[in-house]
Amino acid sequence: MNFYKKRREQFSAAMADKGVSSAIFSPSSDFLYLTGSSRPSSQRIAALILSSERAALLIPDFEKGNDSNLDDEIEVIPYSDSDNAIDILSSLLPSKGCVAVGHEMHADILLSLQHRASYLTWCCADTILEPIRRRKDSWEIQLIETAQHMAERALCRLLSEPLIGHTEREIASRLAELRLQEGFDSVGNGIVASGPNTALPHHINSDRPLSKGDILMVDIGGTYRGYRADFTRTFVLGTPPEGFSDIYHIVLSAHMAGKAAAQSGVSAAEVDHAARQIIERAGYGSYFTHRLGHGIGLDVHEPPFITSSNRAPLEIGNVFSCEPGIYLPGRFGVRIEDLLVLEENGARSLNTLSKDLQIIPV
Amino acid sequence: MNFYKKRREQFSAAMADKGVSSAIFSPSSDFLYLTGSSRPSSQRIAALILSSERAALLIPDFEKGNDSNLDDEIEVIPYSDSDNAIDILSSLLPSKGCVAVGHEMHADILLSLQHRASYLTWCCADTILEPIRRRKDSWEIQLIETAQHMAERALCRLLSEPLIGHTEREIASRLAELRLQEGFDSVGNGIVASGPNTALPHHINSDRPLSKGDILMVDIGGTYRGYRADFTRTFVLGTPPEGFSDIYHIVLSAHMAGKAAAQSGVSAAEVDHAARQIIERAGYGSYFTHRLGHGIGLDVHEPPFITSSNRAPLEIGNVFSCEPGIYLPGRFGVRIEDLLVLEENGARSLNTLSKDLQIIPV
Repeated sequence: MNFYKKRREQFSAAMADKGVSSAIFSPSSDFLYLTGSSRPSSQRIAALILSSERAALLIPDFEKGNDSNLDDEIEVIPYSDSDNAIDILSSLLPSKGCVAVGHEMHADILLSLQHRASYLTWCCADTILEPIRRRKDSWEIQLIETAQHMAERALCRLLSEPLIGHTEREIASRLAELRLQEGFDSVGNGIVASGPNTALPHHINSDRPLSKGDILMVDIGGTYRGYRADFTRTFVLGTPPEGFSDIYHIVLSAHMAGKAAAQSGVSAAEVDHAARQIIERAGYGSYFTHRLGHGIGLDVHEPPFITSSNRAPLEIGNVFSCEPGIYLPGRFGVRIEDLLVLEENGARSLNTLSKDLQIIPV
Repeated sequence: MNFYKKRREQFSAAMADKGVSSAIFSPSSDFLYLTGSSRPSSQRIAALILSSERAALLIPDFEKGNDSNLDDEIEVIPYSDSDNAIDILSSLLPSKGCVAVGHEMHADILLSLQHRASYLTWCCADTILEPIRRRKDSWEIQLIETAQHMAERALCRLLSEPLIGHTEREIASRLAELRLQEGFDSVGNGIVASGPNTALPHHINSDRPLSKGDILMVDIGGTYRGYRADFTRTFVLGTPPEGFSDIYHIVLSAHMAGKAAAQSGVSAAEVDHAARQIIERAGYGSYFTHRLGHGIGLDVHEPPFITSSNRAPLEIGNVFSCEPGIYLPGRFGVRIEDLLVLEENGARSLNTLSKDLQIIPV
């Protein structure tokens, strides 16, 4: 049976279990997951409509044929620029019950549908689809692992080039180029933070040039056949600043403690706690200002979220980041991030690059 | 007065006129328009909350300082990864009345807010903000015009390079590089269609190599300081196929008719009609399969839409594309697109590149 059709049947069964009659998805990772089509989000409406009776795709007339992976079980409903797409979409809604909408649907579409079909109730499709999406199969894990290795190779190539004197933005740009060369379909700029900028977990790349003695933090990903890579390494360019090595090893210990705690049946909060308590006991708890990690797949941030408040148990097939950090304002920060996949015997890292403290000779 | 604060005051006045008490915007072009911050959309919630009493920004704690253009009239409300951002956002809602939400807010956030505050009514902020956004001021027009000229220069540079034998994807990639060199902050891949692929208005760039006698259609844009460029030219690589020159000149006449019709007070539908009837009278009406154009600004597609069904009058300061096309399946297509700005004396093109039929020597 067609791969995506199987996913839709799994979704439909889960939808029936929840008493939901139909679901509508705008172009998004959910849409890609259920159709194989990576249609971009656009001002012109496109929507996948799923119910027990049908799978239909509403798209602009002249974009027919753009959804290359589409199986013929999906009925295509084209509309023209002079049609009102919301009218057509409304006509495809059920006459009663609850309709689930994909979490990335834009508010204007949802509000229009709610206005026209006030007799329906509405819920987020996440409660139905997320539990399916978060259990990755071996094909998905293989794609994420391949993407992760591609990103690692790009970083290794970067580190063999001259860095001193180049700005964060220049390094980020070069790293984007190297990742595309390694085979990514698309990449963002990632985070390239240097010196005191490494103390900002979500630093925006600046025109600061790298100099000797700087800490360099690189957090990159990319999209490969829909799936995402994501990892972080923190390096030293020459002689490290005072205290850096100690902080580095606390973060590394926290990383390893998080990985060791990650088992099927253990809650996300317990995994977060295992890593966090290493940092807290070392006296740096208030400098670890974010969650331990996030699930990853077709989205770079997706469930399960590895936070102190997420009591849901992890399952085999979950893929998520383990990325503790310590950020000392005005001085420097350290973050060490691998992606982990949960298997029978615990968590396996999808990275191959060493996490040992690496001093880049300058 | 601060530029963005002035825009927010204009919005607040329009909101009061509509009897709306508050508005909430997720990171989006509306958010950028009202704050100056081009914060990316992310799984972690960020929201701008506007009412007559306050302007507040809910953001992740460790991203404080990332919104570089933020004026100090905006109160920043940070939250941590262990907080529930929806709880905090709900607590900022009014106790009654109608709340407007930005059209790009994701459905999961809207559904959560509706669930927690079922005593409120909800509407789309577009009805309030769009009439303001669509009247561009001279600063905005200048940015769009600058961006448009940058994209034109990139295309001119491309045309001086060897094209034959290179694939559509390779050409698109080179064109992306050239646009970044010209100064764009970010660019997409655009549309590079060759030979019979030019008959697909939204063709997805393929691995088809360009060869002698091909038609080449290039539709590109890019983002410069938030504002967008967008234009299309259709060329011939050497000797054109039979009938091409006639089709080209019909499309060019339609383009000029659309431009001539565009006046303040004239409806979008009349402008669409002026161009469309040239193509219809030549017998190709059914091969012009899309609207004549779309507004452009911080979004590449925004109001006013130049469609056969849009009866709203155009106004001075509107910036929109004029892009008629004829698409002959299996043979070739032609589209000619400029951006126009509506001034006192009619429409002025923001392009400088010739629209005459250009034969690229090969």
